[in-house]
Amino acid sequence: MLPAGATVAEAKAAAPAAITEQDRQHMTQAIALMRKAGVVEKTGGAFGAVIVRDGEVLAATGNSVLRDNDPSAHAEVNAIRAACKKVGAPNLRGATMYTSCECCPMCYATAYWARLDRIFFAASWTDYADLFDDSNIGADMKNPYAKRKVRIAQMMRSDAQKVWQEFRTLPDRARY
Amino acid sequence: MLPAGATVAEAKAAAPAAITEQDRQHMTQAIALMRKAGVVEKTGGAFGAVIVRDGEVLAATGNSVLRDNDPSAHAEVNAIRAACKKVGAPNLRGATMYTSCECCPMCYATAYWARLDRIFFAASWTDYADLFDDSNIGADMKNPYAKRKVRIAQMMRSDAQKVWQEFRTLPDRARY
Repeated sequence: MLPAGATVAEAKAAAPAAITEQDRQHMTQAIALMRKAGVVEKTGGAFGAVIVRDGEVLAATGNSVLRDNDPSAHAEVNAIRAACKKVGAPNLRGATMYTSCECCPMCYATAYWARLDRIFFAASWTDYADLFDDSNIGADMKNPYAKRKVRIAQMMRSDAQKVWQEFRTLPDRARY
Repeated sequence: MLPAGATVAEAKAAAPAAITEQDRQHMTQAIALMRKAGVVEKTGGAFGAVIVRDGEVLAATGNSVLRDNDPSAHAEVNAIRAACKKVGAPNLRGATMYTSCECCPMCYATAYWARLDRIFFAASWTDYADLFDDSNIGADMKNPYAKRKVRIAQMMRSDAQKVWQEFRTLPDRARY
């Protein structure tokens, strides 16, 4: 991970030409959901997210890891899942996500798979590093497997390769 | 990403002392679920995963991205969510995941948040790089924000910092 200052500077460099009043309204909603999830209803950590496309709010959710007993129920993943359900497709091309905090690697990767167009975030990891270890996971994922926190080993590779070969021959195989 | 050969060698170096017959049975089930998801039922890509703790299979699932219109519905995330639901907790400390393919960054990060103990995988990313871009996302996530595929920018940081300060004062705040 880059030093926080550098990250923010680079994020600003990559920003669209201007942050609009509409952007501020959507982020205000994301921060309200952050407070609702973490401080008021305590469904999980203080995180909120809003997904918008063509001016329409497709999803607006908070973190619900504790309520749902689901480690994947970060605000961003919840919002992506809800938005996809709403539009009836597994992708959100052209959409923007407003999230109260810098995406953890799980949330960023989910946004990538969802083909989100862009992300605005408010707090940096360094703003709550005493509470959640988002930067630790980012650092862990830069390590080779042998040094990862979750031990990883390969086995039975050839058996899985056979299924991939079978999958390749399907005329109507999954594409996304 | 490391070259495939190096990754596999390192994974082997990090492996437990021996792969047991029980491990092979669990991976065989994961590969059967892989085939079911990708080739037979076509709920999504050819991916399957099984989570086991203390000899008990907690979850056994395939990829359902297309069936569920959910980009997060990779076999591994589905398995983690199902296992957590079964045990009634947002973590799976001491559990092992058997997955038909090398985890994408979303799945690895979810495994990390779930506090999984270890992961066995069968196919490497290179075995199906013509079909899914798992290695592309890994490469993207190593880039600074300014060069990411999903454009990222920061805004309204101080508003979110205020909520974090409020969250910190809660005696019963979320911990996980």
